[in-house]
Amino acid sequence: MKKIAIMGHGVVGSGVAEVFFKNYENIKRKVRDDAEIKYILDLRDFPSLPYSDKFTKNFDDILNDPEISLVVETMGGLEPAYTFVKKCLLSKKSVVTSNKELVAEKGAELLAIAKDSNVKFLFEASVGGGIPIIRPLSQCLAANDILEINGILNGTTNYILTNMVKESVDFDCALRQAQSLGYAERDPSADILGLDASRKICILASIAYGKHVYPKCVFAQGINQISLADLEYAKLAGGSVKLIASAKLLDSGKIAVETSPAFIPYSNPLSSVDDVFNAVHVRGNNVGDVTFIGRGAGKLPTASAVMSDVIEALARPDYDPMLSWNDSGSDFIIPHESISHRFYLRLTSSDFSRLDTIIKNSEKIAQSKTEVALISAQTSYSELSKISSLLADAKITVASAFRVLE
Amino acid sequence: MKKIAIMGHGVVGSGVAEVFFKNYENIKRKVRDDAEIKYILDLRDFPSLPYSDKFTKNFDDILNDPEISLVVETMGGLEPAYTFVKKCLLSKKSVVTSNKELVAEKGAELLAIAKDSNVKFLFEASVGGGIPIIRPLSQCLAANDILEINGILNGTTNYILTNMVKESVDFDCALRQAQSLGYAERDPSADILGLDASRKICILASIAYGKHVYPKCVFAQGINQISLADLEYAKLAGGSVKLIASAKLLDSGKIAVETSPAFIPYSNPLSSVDDVFNAVHVRGNNVGDVTFIGRGAGKLPTASAVMSDVIEALARPDYDPMLSWNDSGSDFIIPHESISHRFYLRLTSSDFSRLDTIIKNSEKIAQSKTEVALISAQTSYSELSKISSLLADAKITVASAFRVLE
Repeated sequence: MKKIAIMGHGVVGSGVAEVFFKNYENIKRKVRDDAEIKYILDLRDFPSLPYSDKFTKNFDDILNDPEISLVVETMGGLEPAYTFVKKCLLSKKSVVTSNKELVAEKGAELLAIAKDSNVKFLFEASVGGGIPIIRPLSQCLAANDILEINGILNGTTNYILTNMVKESVDFDCALRQAQSLGYAERDPSADILGLDASRKICILASIAYGKHVYPKCVFAQGINQISLADLEYAKLAGGSVKLIASAKLLDSGKIAVETSPAFIPYSNPLSSVDDVFNAVHVRGNNVGDVTFIGRGAGKLPTASAVMSDVIEALARPDYDPMLSWNDSGSDFIIPHESISHRFYLRLTSSDFSRLDTIIKNSEKIAQSKTEVALISAQTSYSELSKISSLLADAKITVASAFRVLE
Repeated sequence: MKKIAIMGHGVVGSGVAEVFFKNYENIKRKVRDDAEIKYILDLRDFPSLPYSDKFTKNFDDILNDPEISLVVETMGGLEPAYTFVKKCLLSKKSVVTSNKELVAEKGAELLAIAKDSNVKFLFEASVGGGIPIIRPLSQCLAANDILEINGILNGTTNYILTNMVKESVDFDCALRQAQSLGYAERDPSADILGLDASRKICILASIAYGKHVYPKCVFAQGINQISLADLEYAKLAGGSVKLIASAKLLDSGKIAVETSPAFIPYSNPLSSVDDVFNAVHVRGNNVGDVTFIGRGAGKLPTASAVMSDVIEALARPDYDPMLSWNDSGSDFIIPHESISHRFYLRLTSSDFSRLDTIIKNSEKIAQSKTEVALISAQTSYSELSKISSLLADAKITVASAFRVLE
């Protein structure tokens, strides 16, 4: 009999309990043993639940119970999750988590502790919700050098961008709709500004490149500056705009990591991943392009990913998930100023006469007397910022600027 | 030092050798040991290759060498692959194969032998080329009841259907183009008639439902009857036509399995998977819809999948891949006559006056004096065949008939 504990009974934690009870026979068959949820840690009371007797408010009940060999962490946030998880791993309890902040900030340390303790630290649910991505990236694509990863990793922003187009509304209106439907939080800044997606690309990049990529090293540009006009110009240019989190291996051996809005031509499968769906595109040197699409959040999809880790950890206690990376500095990540793209630009002015001398070799999408939308030639963020100054001198305002995903 | 053998030096086998040498350092790091290809079995000579000394024409060299712990089978076809693989497994050598025919026909037996011998039988490359699908289905979605699988599993037919639309050519012309590009074989029947895709859905369905689904139990309808007109009507109706291999869990607990052309509305991500790309859509009771897209064939993508299995088998000799199913009869598969769909129909006649009394509640896509394209109400294949007789009595010819993927 395997006994486990769940820490946190919010959306994901309650989903894990639900999937556990609903698919119990299936899970038991795969684990090849009986399994039981012995504790659920939450500060709140849930007296009406059929499993209300399992709740505890005291973490030490879990930590000090030798019967518990595996702990599921679905509390979210860095603390107290970090302290609890670290203690569990040090006490030789395996941990399965859905907490992207924890993995993005402390992954290297926690993986090292798990290895020393000869237990597991698994986090399939931390990126892409129910989409299998951690295991495919670390195992199925193991015979590849990962050249590039591009992901739609935040459902809230994808919903907002999709809805702006569908309903012809501006950003603020789409955000309010998302909030009223529960797709965006009351304080939506972590989603809107790209921090959530940045944490997730950190996890994928750490797996792909074997070194810890910390969120503070990732340049993040949110979607709050995107206007409906930008989305309409994108359509005119044959594509859509998505918040994309990217990691790319450069010829120098260093990597470029960023989260920012991107114009994506319709020929790229990511361009049509809409609503709250997430997607991850991986380019390997042997496999070529592989794309994974699915529900990036939500109670049951995320719980499904958590339970796949739980089953794996219980069914194969001696199994090595080939999931690890080293702690590291940031000198293998190039500064964002030197990342180079073609850029979509929307410019406003009453006089565009000097435009073509400042921005050379651009492709115009549309031009009116007071507005121009164009796609620039390949240029770096630092050159782009110089161009913006020159445009300002010429009384041309950069109303919008974001990269093109090639 | 791990020593392996490759049986078959065709497209995939030579790709495995290429990936092995190209990504050697990466592979060694993941295997945590030195690894070497000791033998390559092929009846042909390759004197100019840098590794020409590794070739043998004698299978017994491999079978009787106790240093060989793992054999890669990339010969294809049922024999002699089946005999060789069985002997390897009985001699406690793990086997990694890309051979879908072998797995679809003999999977249950070979998995059982591997289990008895305490070695591995892995086949990630047998379905979807480089797309990670076997492991995600068996492991990442382990906490789900699989409600449905729909796959574009044959690149040749997908290329032909895509090209018919792009170039406005008929089936025969697109087939000849595919042959001249090497995308279709000189005898293309296994692809065109859906047999190749059927073998692959057998493998996925066997994993999903735990019982061996044999190719002879799968109803297969090819794409050779699809005309350019059908693809144009599909476009008019807001979708595309793809050869789809499907397995579906029914309320009765039985499953429906078939390979047939299907009209797919644009809202389904499969509708825009073009050219030689493959894709698999899986619906789980918890995860919801997940879609995997990538190169379904080709030397390096397939070799990438083979090598991921090789790395796994070498890195974790004691690891249980949770990959097995039981041999079984076919009474859990419903007869194809009772499978029910809405159907796309293209009808020709000089007199459609009796049409609406024979086919009720249809949605017309287009109608001319001599041709009607419509989508029928939900009906079974056996009812469809009755309707076809009634239409024949009314001098209306069914020029084309295939299902709608909902």
